[in-house]
Amino acid sequence: MNEVQLKESERVDDLLNQDLQIIQSDEVFSFSMDAVLLSRFASLPRRGTILDLCTGNGVIPILLSVRTEAMIEGIEIQDRLADMARRSIEMNGLEHRITIHAGDLRELPALVGHNKYDAITMNPPYMPMRTGDLKINPHQAAARHEIHGSLEELIHAAMKLVRPGGKVSMVHKPQRLGEIITLLRQYRLEPKRIRFVHPRIGMEANMVLIEALRDGKPDIRLLPPLIVYEENGEYCPEIMDIYYGSMRDKGDC
Amino acid sequence: MNEVQLKESERVDDLLNQDLQIIQSDEVFSFSMDAVLLSRFASLPRRGTILDLCTGNGVIPILLSVRTEAMIEGIEIQDRLADMARRSIEMNGLEHRITIHAGDLRELPALVGHNKYDAITMNPPYMPMRTGDLKINPHQAAARHEIHGSLEELIHAAMKLVRPGGKVSMVHKPQRLGEIITLLRQYRLEPKRIRFVHPRIGMEANMVLIEALRDGKPDIRLLPPLIVYEENGEYCPEIMDIYYGSMRDKGDC
Repeated sequence: MNEVQLKESERVDDLLNQDLQIIQSDEVFSFSMDAVLLSRFASLPRRGTILDLCTGNGVIPILLSVRTEAMIEGIEIQDRLADMARRSIEMNGLEHRITIHAGDLRELPALVGHNKYDAITMNPPYMPMRTGDLKINPHQAAARHEIHGSLEELIHAAMKLVRPGGKVSMVHKPQRLGEIITLLRQYRLEPKRIRFVHPRIGMEANMVLIEALRDGKPDIRLLPPLIVYEENGEYCPEIMDIYYGSMRDKGDC
Repeated sequence: MNEVQLKESERVDDLLNQDLQIIQSDEVFSFSMDAVLLSRFASLPRRGTILDLCTGNGVIPILLSVRTEAMIEGIEIQDRLADMARRSIEMNGLEHRITIHAGDLRELPALVGHNKYDAITMNPPYMPMRTGDLKINPHQAAARHEIHGSLEELIHAAMKLVRPGGKVSMVHKPQRLGEIITLLRQYRLEPKRIRFVHPRIGMEANMVLIEALRDGKPDIRLLPPLIVYEENGEYCPEIMDIYYGSMRDKGDC
């Protein structure tokens, strides 16, 4: 690992059984299981260019880098997080593969052009607006609530940025599945592959992984449920493999 | 059971551990697991009026009759099947509870009025048009393909027929989930409860149960996966209970 400067409240965590490391901060941004599962779920081109929207501390681009030789870009609206992401990328020696844009993703199509990316990933804020939890700080609020753009604006931007025939993958809450599917299809992103994540076998899903094909035809594969915990409270083998195995040479989950 | 006349190729099968019986025919119509699961999944009013669209041999109205005291109606476009359904209803002594309309469901709103039903169920044909299997007879073709109306016409009719705040439940194929959700929401039927059925725990879903609320707000509960077979090839306990238990006094699945 390359040495980089840590700022206040930051720590360095291992990713994927110590192959990679990432700068985190509970006050600013820490990734959750959602990002890890999306990084494994998304269908990726071997080469070409991938974009991660709402990239936060860059966890998804860093994880994707082990699954593909494609160039990877991320965009993050908060300067503080974009800076964290860049230092993590430097720490892992991935500067030649991953580029972080600091800015508003809604302005990216005008900046870089349309139909540019072979695949797009996104782990956006799950809640439509800021409601309730007033104690959280602005970084946490922006990670949870659609403060810097609605789900529709995000999907609209993704449609402009991905090439025809390219794929857009996201992780979100099942509660919003109706809106997600309607918006994707409204913007010619046809859902093709969906997987629900259930904490335990008998529980409702608390996460959905969904992949859409730009200009695809309607035909959904509804994958086997991904169950997080065994009945004894331990991680299921598939989760153990995603977290502690190497992502190299693995198919999509 | 009341005695009724059987026609050529017809047989009588038990439903729900011999509580009920139904007339079936492999040449004309036999119900499948889909209808049984929908009959258990649908949220029903205790009283009021329920309508089953594409009712076939009336299996869903007959099964629903044990879960509610509501009046139940079914509509079936094929006279031969409507006749089977009526004889099955007579056989079970349910004439005072269940009425079968023989006719085109697209004409029902004009006939019976709008906003009439508290709940609607439907197990429609899964395939958009007749493709391939030319060996099947017209009864089988109509059960599998949207010959007598498209998915959109069906959902549009359901929206007109159900009262505001009423529920519409259907069973369909996950492949068509995108279209189903788009159409439901287009016709103000907001998906609220979804359950996927997987043949085995590690397999893709081959059935989806979905319930929508007329004029509801977006908020989906994605229920635990319903797994049909254990690893040893036997039915899972939940399926055993649905098939061989009594549906009386049971909550929705």
